[in-house]
Amino acid sequence: MAEGETNARECCVSSATPTEEMNGSGNLMDFLDEPFPDVGTYEDFHTIDWLREKSRDTDRHRKITSKSKESIWELVKSLLDAWSGWLVMLLIGLLSGTLAGVIDLAVDWMTDLKEGVCLSVFWYSHEQCCWTSNETTFADRDKCPQWQKWAELMTGYTEGAGVYMLNYFLYVVWALFFSFLAVSLVRVFAPYACGSGIPEIKTILSGFIIRGYLGKWTLLIKTVTLVLAVSSGLSLGKEGPLVHVACCCGNLFCSLFSKYSKNEGKRREVLSAAAAAGVSVAFGAPIGGVLFSLEEVSYYFPLKTLWRSFFAALVAAFTLRSINPFGNNRLVLFYVEYHTPWYMAELVPFILLGVFGGLWGTLFIRCNIAWCRRRKTTLLGKYPVLEVIVVTGVTAILAFPNPYTRRSTSELISELFNDCGALESSQLCDYVNNPNMTRPVDDIPDRPAGPGVYSALWQLTLALIFKIVITIFTFGMKIPSGLFIPSMAVGAIAGRIVGIAVEQMAYHHHDWIIFKSWCRPGADCVTPGLYAMVGAAACLGGVTRMTVSLVVIMFELTGGLEYIVPLMAAAVTSKWVADAFGKEGIYEAHIQLNGYPYLDQDEFTHRTLATDVMRPRRNEPPLSVLTQDSTTVEDVETLIKETDYNGFPVVVSRESERLIGFVQRRDLILAIKNARQKQDGVVSNSVVYFTEDAPQLPPSNPQPLKLRRILNLSPFTVTDHTPMETVVDIFRKLGLRQCLVTRSGRLLGIITKKDVLRHMAQMMNQDPESIMFN
Amino acid sequence: MAEGETNARECCVSSATPTEEMNGSGNLMDFLDEPFPDVGTYEDFHTIDWLREKSRDTDRHRKITSKSKESIWELVKSLLDAWSGWLVMLLIGLLSGTLAGVIDLAVDWMTDLKEGVCLSVFWYSHEQCCWTSNETTFADRDKCPQWQKWAELMTGYTEGAGVYMLNYFLYVVWALFFSFLAVSLVRVFAPYACGSGIPEIKTILSGFIIRGYLGKWTLLIKTVTLVLAVSSGLSLGKEGPLVHVACCCGNLFCSLFSKYSKNEGKRREVLSAAAAAGVSVAFGAPIGGVLFSLEEVSYYFPLKTLWRSFFAALVAAFTLRSINPFGNNRLVLFYVEYHTPWYMAELVPFILLGVFGGLWGTLFIRCNIAWCRRRKTTLLGKYPVLEVIVVTGVTAILAFPNPYTRRSTSELISELFNDCGALESSQLCDYVNNPNMTRPVDDIPDRPAGPGVYSALWQLTLALIFKIVITIFTFGMKIPSGLFIPSMAVGAIAGRIVGIAVEQMAYHHHDWIIFKSWCRPGADCVTPGLYAMVGAAACLGGVTRMTVSLVVIMFELTGGLEYIVPLMAAAVTSKWVADAFGKEGIYEAHIQLNGYPYLDQDEFTHRTLATDVMRPRRNEPPLSVLTQDSTTVEDVETLIKETDYNGFPVVVSRESERLIGFVQRRDLILAIKNARQKQDGVVSNSVVYFTEDAPQLPPSNPQPLKLRRILNLSPFTVTDHTPMETVVDIFRKLGLRQCLVTRSGRLLGIITKKDVLRHMAQMMNQDPESIMFN
Repeated sequence: MAEGETNARECCVSSATPTEEMNGSGNLMDFLDEPFPDVGTYEDFHTIDWLREKSRDTDRHRKITSKSKESIWELVKSLLDAWSGWLVMLLIGLLSGTLAGVIDLAVDWMTDLKEGVCLSVFWYSHEQCCWTSNETTFADRDKCPQWQKWAELMTGYTEGAGVYMLNYFLYVVWALFFSFLAVSLVRVFAPYACGSGIPEIKTILSGFIIRGYLGKWTLLIKTVTLVLAVSSGLSLGKEGPLVHVACCCGNLFCSLFSKYSKNEGKRREVLSAAAAAGVSVAFGAPIGGVLFSLEEVSYYFPLKTLWRSFFAALVAAFTLRSINPFGNNRLVLFYVEYHTPWYMAELVPFILLGVFGGLWGTLFIRCNIAWCRRRKTTLLGKYPVLEVIVVTGVTAILAFPNPYTRRSTSELISELFNDCGALESSQLCDYVNNPNMTRPVDDIPDRPAGPGVYSALWQLTLALIFKIVITIFTFGMKIPSGLFIPSMAVGAIAGRIVGIAVEQMAYHHHDWIIFKSWCRPGADCVTPGLYAMVGAAACLGGVTRMTVSLVVIMFELTGGLEYIVPLMAAAVTSKWVADAFGKEGIYEAHIQLNGYPYLDQDEFTHRTLATDVMRPRRNEPPLSVLTQDSTTVEDVETLIKETDYNGFPVVVSRESERLIGFVQRRDLILAIKNARQKQDGVVSNSVVYFTEDAPQLPPSNPQPLKLRRILNLSPFTVTDHTPMETVVDIFRKLGLRQCLVTRSGRLLGIITKKDVLRHMAQMMNQDPESIMFN
Repeated sequence: MAEGETNARECCVSSATPTEEMNGSGNLMDFLDEPFPDVGTYEDFHTIDWLREKSRDTDRHRKITSKSKESIWELVKSLLDAWSGWLVMLLIGLLSGTLAGVIDLAVDWMTDLKEGVCLSVFWYSHEQCCWTSNETTFADRDKCPQWQKWAELMTGYTEGAGVYMLNYFLYVVWALFFSFLAVSLVRVFAPYACGSGIPEIKTILSGFIIRGYLGKWTLLIKTVTLVLAVSSGLSLGKEGPLVHVACCCGNLFCSLFSKYSKNEGKRREVLSAAAAAGVSVAFGAPIGGVLFSLEEVSYYFPLKTLWRSFFAALVAAFTLRSINPFGNNRLVLFYVEYHTPWYMAELVPFILLGVFGGLWGTLFIRCNIAWCRRRKTTLLGKYPVLEVIVVTGVTAILAFPNPYTRRSTSELISELFNDCGALESSQLCDYVNNPNMTRPVDDIPDRPAGPGVYSALWQLTLALIFKIVITIFTFGMKIPSGLFIPSMAVGAIAGRIVGIAVEQMAYHHHDWIIFKSWCRPGADCVTPGLYAMVGAAACLGGVTRMTVSLVVIMFELTGGLEYIVPLMAAAVTSKWVADAFGKEGIYEAHIQLNGYPYLDQDEFTHRTLATDVMRPRRNEPPLSVLTQDSTTVEDVETLIKETDYNGFPVVVSRESERLIGFVQRRDLILAIKNARQKQDGVVSNSVVYFTEDAPQLPPSNPQPLKLRRILNLSPFTVTDHTPMETVVDIFRKLGLRQCLVTRSGRLLGIITKKDVLRHMAQMMNQDPESIMFN
């Protein structure tokens, strides 16, 4: 990484602002409360200092508490402040629940718009249109006169090659129109609205500033383009972007309260909770959402945040339910109810599905990253609109002929998850029924597959190949695109195919030794829908490397602890298999691809010391430092001009090299500018003092400039012999930006977060196997 | 706290052992791999150093990884090592599930043994006895000839005052016998087996050593005495002790693998997972168990542990289910199914129950702590056996006449939670039925209460008062005693009373404005069982201050997301109310009462600096330090004899006071003893060198003693200006034992974990309100 990049060398803000650390001892208080405007904010693409943010919040809180004893009004204000956290959570829950509901409704309508229109009420989706119709019977619940396909409406005919071709053509046109609109809106109004957003949110939550990423425009455009992108029939989902949308809501409400808007650390607590609310509405799984936020996206997750996240997730889920976009009064996206237990022997296919999920996850990550790298480095990246148009065109043309790819992916998954009840009319449930048997609604024994099932199997196989290939090219385009749904679709298709295969084997060969012990003839042994679910979990696990949250989300879909074991078996296998080929999930891979400074939770296991990582290196010029009482204003200005470091250590003298403190570049510039304007007698050869008292100088000398008030007196230090694993741990747990290295009290060098990341990447490439098992 | 206590001043082990920090740079490797035996272990009642344990594990792991390339056998060993974590989890799940099942069965049998015996199979409980009998009808399922009460067996009569008195007398005798046996076993064999164990486990998980607390004897005796204590009818539960039992299992299996037995940090990861398994079997709630471990007991909980905990919790839950102690094939302790939704207006009584729970929690904690303090300080503590006997006697005498206290507390809770179905025969379901109505099984409208309900209300009120009072005296006695069940019982009784009251009001006054909008006559509006559940959650929350885990455990009992909102409302209210009177839950209060060094997660908000906390204070003698090249062996020995510090900083010279490193007392004693025995020429006036090379001395001088190999070259330092909130944060997040304080590279003093805790306690007492809202 070049040194001259935006966030060049980060030695800017240190563990506590001057305000706090000096208030403690009274004799040092010769400074203003907020010395200059803008002190305490960060520049774009810079890393925040968690310890400092925490310190600032404690300080703010102390002020409010001490003020609250002064008057009733201040007491009320302090109470409001204490409750504002809950209020923000409530607002986030309400807004993200509402947005999710609106998105669901709009997607439903627009997805169907590609095929036809409801003549009675044009904003009704196919299902709603025929529900409200009186002429619909239960058996033909998909057909009603109010709902007309485009060709039927235009030509009056419902059958024939011409009609089919016209529908086909219009389907493709609508898809192209939607995706063109989506990519144009993203390009013009909010470039940050593209992608799933989870890699960026992970980075932001770990303490990075990306201005505008969670802004109002992003929120608006992402919501609108998400609907367009999903409706266009591309192989993408709305789950990841919903997390981004929820985080935008969180950020929006943060700006209402200075407690959150002025403190980047507190803001991130709110964003963690918002991420939980996002997953909660995406799947209708509040507990899973909280665990997802904890496990996958959050960096700093105190228990208070856990509790509030849970509240936000619940409010969001119940808001969504009251909107009732699925029309079934259910909270969850894929509601399933299975009636038969699973058997031990079935663990074998479940584990095989886990292996498939792991392999697919690896394959997908490798191919997708390779393609995204190509997009970044070649001409391809220059034509994002064209790329979207081409991919949409290919998707639509290939998807239309196959009924399993023509419909929306979430409908497909829903059908694959379902158990074949007696009233099921789908092709997948076309089994040969025994005419002599009375059919109870719930407990249908295994039956031989009919021709519908066989043709469905073929179509599903084609759909599987299509989804596997097209998703690689879709994820990462300049439109909002989530990965949960396509991953689940791949797994669900594979799982259903395996499930039907096992079912038919068990039916036709129940004397085989592997079936004999648990599957009697005429019993309902195998539930293909469960296999689809297990496969979906496996593929999702392979791509994202989620563990607990994945199983809990799936558990919340079925609601029965019973099926946790198959899900867990598949998730564990898939994670192990995928981890064997590379530790990174898709989000970490994208973080790395984009070069975000994200310090992940993996253990660092190499035998290096702080001295090997710190700068300056052996052949580099010595560290740029300031002395406490012998640098002139001109020296400082030269140093600022000639280097781009974000801060400078202050030492007693160049000879002793004993560390006094750390001063940040930005504060230094502001302080000197301020002094030159307002303080008489400060000229270029004025001496800058960082000591407590400047000595009495003869009047002939120029006026000294006292800068102790901007000096951070508690910079974080380690010795040069500290093992790097400890240094990494300290950076990760305390959220540092930089750390000074000393030996026997002498300043030797500096380690920044960037240095740590660079070192970790170097070590990883040297010996990638060494961190495989831990 | 006196300085001379067991864990006097902890300045013993520092952030990395010499082994690791020197391996990095080759020129320093003039030492043995494990210099002396016992290096790296801790003494009893000492605090561990998390950073050091982590460093040691990384080192071990590095060794295994590099060896694994040498041969197939080493590769297999490294794979086994990588999988041993999962194996330990599996074993913990299996054993703790089995133990929980055995405990449940034994408690069932012995609780019933107080009243009577099964003649056909004497080890059957009442329920099992009558289930297996052919002469039992469904309506009279509690009565069968095989089951005889003691008086009936002895006298042949089933009715009459004499029979009642004989049964009463025998009930009390059995109770006294069980509790006497329990307390005697605890006293004689395993004093650590008493209490709930959760405060101690929290302390151990935060990095404290209590040898034997999780030992084999404790496991055995706690399991046996838990059965006895619960069967004796005392107001205590088995849930807390089950966590202790599961942690003992965890510790047992740790000893099988050197990875865990030799590393106190890794061991604690296993124990965290074991705690999750314990709660999982206690309630049949695996997800709740994991969250309980995360929220309530664990200190260091990496994501890897989260996933493994979940695995252990699931295995434990399914092992328990396969034992099926409740005979209903259900996983959960209290299985409930409600058939009607709740209404918004009901939130008012739910919140009132929350207030009750919070108040009760506060009252309980205050009274119990006062009583336990009295036990610690007065003669009362000298007679634990007598105390148990007296409390058991009082409990049994007061409990027998009231049917709601006579039975086991978990049966009581189970009945209170239940909705009154059509087939319910309990007194609580004695409603006046409308004879004209056809009664569907599930959806019974509200009915007027019959005389049974009214008498049940009286008995419940008496039971409530009894439980509230007796639990205060029971918790903390020298027998295993959990608090979950008694707390839930108090809440469930209160909740059911409120529920019945609301139900009758709604029935008799459904024209009142508060009922009009949601409760039509003839509808099933109010479910008193739900109120009981909400009350139980509120009281449990008030006592333990659990939040998410509480709601999730309760959610897993009902299985419906529907009822999360009432539970959450009650839990939030109860926590707020209780927190307003004092931040501490019962476990934290007991930790403080016992003076364990536990650094809790509360924020430190005072404006003090490291310089205010460090030692030596202003008037104290200077810090005991060693110099790197001018101390003699005799000086060191004198220092060791005259002080009881656990370690000493090493400086360049007494004049410059520049810090070189930190050496621990134990290593120093071992090294000098070793040198005096084995190394020729090391005498009392040999100079001790901590430098890299000892200078060439003239032969007349005694042989120098080189001790750099036991010097920790990376001690943790902060400057004297560091705000204490940052210091506390560093201690908490990095798990330090001590930290050195410097100013401009000069050593000023030392801060130990004890100093931090003492300072926090001081600050808290000065200004207890200031940390109320955050």
